[in-house]
Amino acid sequence: MSAAWFRRRFLPGAALPSPRPPGPRASPVPYRRPRFLRGPGPGPGPADASSRRPEARPVRSPARGRALPWNAGYAEIINAEKSEFNEDQASCGKLCIRRCELESEDQEWLMLCPEELLTGHYWALFDGHGGPAAAILAANTLHSCLRRQLEAVVEGLLTPQPPMHLSGRCVCPSDPQFVEEKGIRAEDLVIGALESAFQECDEVIGRELEVSGQVGGCTALVAVSLQGKLYVANAGDSRAILVRKDEVRPLSFEFTPETERQRIQQLALVYPELLAGEFTRLEFPRRLKGDDLGQKVLFRDHHMSGWSYKRVEKADLKYPLIHGQGRQARLLGTLAVSRGLGDHQLRVLDTNIQLKPFLLSIPQVTVLDMDQLALQEEDVVVMATDGLWDVLSNEQVARLVRSFLPGNREDPHRFSELAQKLILSTQGTDGSAPGVSYDDISVFVIPLHSQSQGGRGP
Amino acid sequence: MSAAWFRRRFLPGAALPSPRPPGPRASPVPYRRPRFLRGPGPGPGPADASSRRPEARPVRSPARGRALPWNAGYAEIINAEKSEFNEDQASCGKLCIRRCELESEDQEWLMLCPEELLTGHYWALFDGHGGPAAAILAANTLHSCLRRQLEAVVEGLLTPQPPMHLSGRCVCPSDPQFVEEKGIRAEDLVIGALESAFQECDEVIGRELEVSGQVGGCTALVAVSLQGKLYVANAGDSRAILVRKDEVRPLSFEFTPETERQRIQQLALVYPELLAGEFTRLEFPRRLKGDDLGQKVLFRDHHMSGWSYKRVEKADLKYPLIHGQGRQARLLGTLAVSRGLGDHQLRVLDTNIQLKPFLLSIPQVTVLDMDQLALQEEDVVVMATDGLWDVLSNEQVARLVRSFLPGNREDPHRFSELAQKLILSTQGTDGSAPGVSYDDISVFVIPLHSQSQGGRGP
Repeated sequence: MSAAWFRRRFLPGAALPSPRPPGPRASPVPYRRPRFLRGPGPGPGPADASSRRPEARPVRSPARGRALPWNAGYAEIINAEKSEFNEDQASCGKLCIRRCELESEDQEWLMLCPEELLTGHYWALFDGHGGPAAAILAANTLHSCLRRQLEAVVEGLLTPQPPMHLSGRCVCPSDPQFVEEKGIRAEDLVIGALESAFQECDEVIGRELEVSGQVGGCTALVAVSLQGKLYVANAGDSRAILVRKDEVRPLSFEFTPETERQRIQQLALVYPELLAGEFTRLEFPRRLKGDDLGQKVLFRDHHMSGWSYKRVEKADLKYPLIHGQGRQARLLGTLAVSRGLGDHQLRVLDTNIQLKPFLLSIPQVTVLDMDQLALQEEDVVVMATDGLWDVLSNEQVARLVRSFLPGNREDPHRFSELAQKLILSTQGTDGSAPGVSYDDISVFVIPLHSQSQGGRGP
Repeated sequence: MSAAWFRRRFLPGAALPSPRPPGPRASPVPYRRPRFLRGPGPGPGPADASSRRPEARPVRSPARGRALPWNAGYAEIINAEKSEFNEDQASCGKLCIRRCELESEDQEWLMLCPEELLTGHYWALFDGHGGPAAAILAANTLHSCLRRQLEAVVEGLLTPQPPMHLSGRCVCPSDPQFVEEKGIRAEDLVIGALESAFQECDEVIGRELEVSGQVGGCTALVAVSLQGKLYVANAGDSRAILVRKDEVRPLSFEFTPETERQRIQQLALVYPELLAGEFTRLEFPRRLKGDDLGQKVLFRDHHMSGWSYKRVEKADLKYPLIHGQGRQARLLGTLAVSRGLGDHQLRVLDTNIQLKPFLLSIPQVTVLDMDQLALQEEDVVVMATDGLWDVLSNEQVARLVRSFLPGNREDPHRFSELAQKLILSTQGTDGSAPGVSYDDISVFVIPLHSQSQGGRGP
């Protein structure tokens, strides 16, 4: 992406992207649930709401005996008629990184017999909005983008310190020292590959939605195990936490119009054309009205993390770029998240004002070095879409994990049972949570202890 | 500041700011040391290097009996002939906030008899570069800017939750609820006032340097006590830490080309004209050369916190926007800090490429709620310019604090003695630190315990 590209794509005078391809429209992305939910439904486990309370929405898990990577657990619930479909999607699987490109004469031979260099695992949650298509595309695509990006740098992953030149050729004798001084490690290449994979996936989704004439976007939360480390990449408002006996550690950070206010206001400062004269960049505690004119009211601009007062002018009465707070905060009155995939065609209702220039597809990545953790048997990572966290705090989830797992050590399905139990705690049935969620919810529970050693490459 | 202003000021085609004013040049800002160092020199305390080692550079402190606010300690050392002057400056004092502007009929009466509403204290360190003038101007000016900014919002500071309208008028009955929902507290107004004061001071410095024909810039680190809270505002690479018996807490974060790489690369993406075709936005572990052409080398762009490989093109051989690492990292090959005051005229050597568009004058502000801390007698804040932290870690400073204070409880001058001791530990004389600093160093040691209650307003 360059500034020239951005201006051509988003600023006035730019040719608008054609809403439909010139050729015949491709068939729409078909709706589906995750592959691992197919087959017989969830067993009648103790936490299976559908068997106990016929009036409740069913909580679905993989069938007993259908093991996910690392014996992870999964459960999901569809929203209370917010839309016809479950807009959440999930995927997981093994990640096989092969040597795909070598710049030596061995290349042809290696292409014929690709060598598997690294093996990892992958769990991903996508929370769709504006329709299920983007989340389905992301669930179908992101792992392939990631594999491709990792294969492009795999030679650099095989030593703790990547070489300056991917070929290993040493142009300058001090190259290892320069790389050392920058503190660049193999894990930085995985972080870079995740960042690039999210961008690539976003481009694929943009193209696919355009040719199928569909719309929509989704958040993305991905956990990847590779070489003894767990990488958590997040773009949106899903969340992953590590729960241990004596510790609860956030592994992701939510990206909403509220948490990214300064970045978004800064962009509107640089390109005021993006607001088309309809919105004000400034933040106020509420939308201003005529009676406020001439008064000094609380406000914040792009450079402020504190608040100050300004005298209200007529331009301040416009609708704010970011409005509302907490779960109600909206970007351009439209969207509750500021990072994710898709939304290439999304516009403010009844206007031509685009949301996409304000959205980032880049995730933030955190790294958990499992070898340094002295993992205990019941250490797990809990990943869930925002519907869970709207109702349960990190500490409440940790309490549920700690109370459930010790009593269910023998059940191989226990991590899916736990995922179900977490979802049921948001349905107002057991009195353990202060609220009720009517949203789609998807949950992975990933046990770290016994599997963390098995996820290494050869 | 607006985008249009930025483009007019910094982009090609803009009228260059005239280097000199049309009228006669004002006299240069006179060099000086802090006011509180005047009078008799430091007493021959045990930590006074100048009395013990005649060949060493002298460490200066306020005279015994000259108390700074809260009985804070101070010491400084001039660099080892890096420049003729000590480019560090310091100031401290009482901060009296008056009601300066009311929009009622009482205004005239109040202007005649301004009411002192709040009292606080203020300690500031400025580390100059390119000459001492900017640091001197900042030491002379910033506290006045801060007082003015606080006075402009003082009515909002007098209740825990500021009113939506500064006048207290309630246009919308739910205004208190809107402010409550945004979580806006009086401390957010102080943060906003600090942010505005730094900007205002930067503008004053720009004007003053222009009329006096001088150049230069400085970092700024400020601690302000107000209403039981300590605010630490930082723009640059100085540092403040809280040292307690069982805790060392950073109160600031350094802003360098390395820590602000993504912001700086992002600006170069939006306004590539700022690099005038001479620099590359991309980061590489070292400067590339002809032999690297066509190879795949490690690189990072604005959106990446990880690293990846790219095939080297001719444009990549340009000098990098940010080059080097750690203390050696430089912005445009010129500057080691990315935030601060001044530098309005600074250009890359022998070019017309300006540094100022990449610099921010906005500080990051942290807040220490002293009432919540259960302060102990030897809890202190240590503020120092980068020369100290180049040699001593936070933990090493904390060890020196904890070993010195308990043995010197009776000496009223003990916090200046401690500041001297910290500086001496960087001079390679006592073997306690791994390195030696040849830089200017200035240190405040602020005791929190007994004084924190006395700093409140009436």
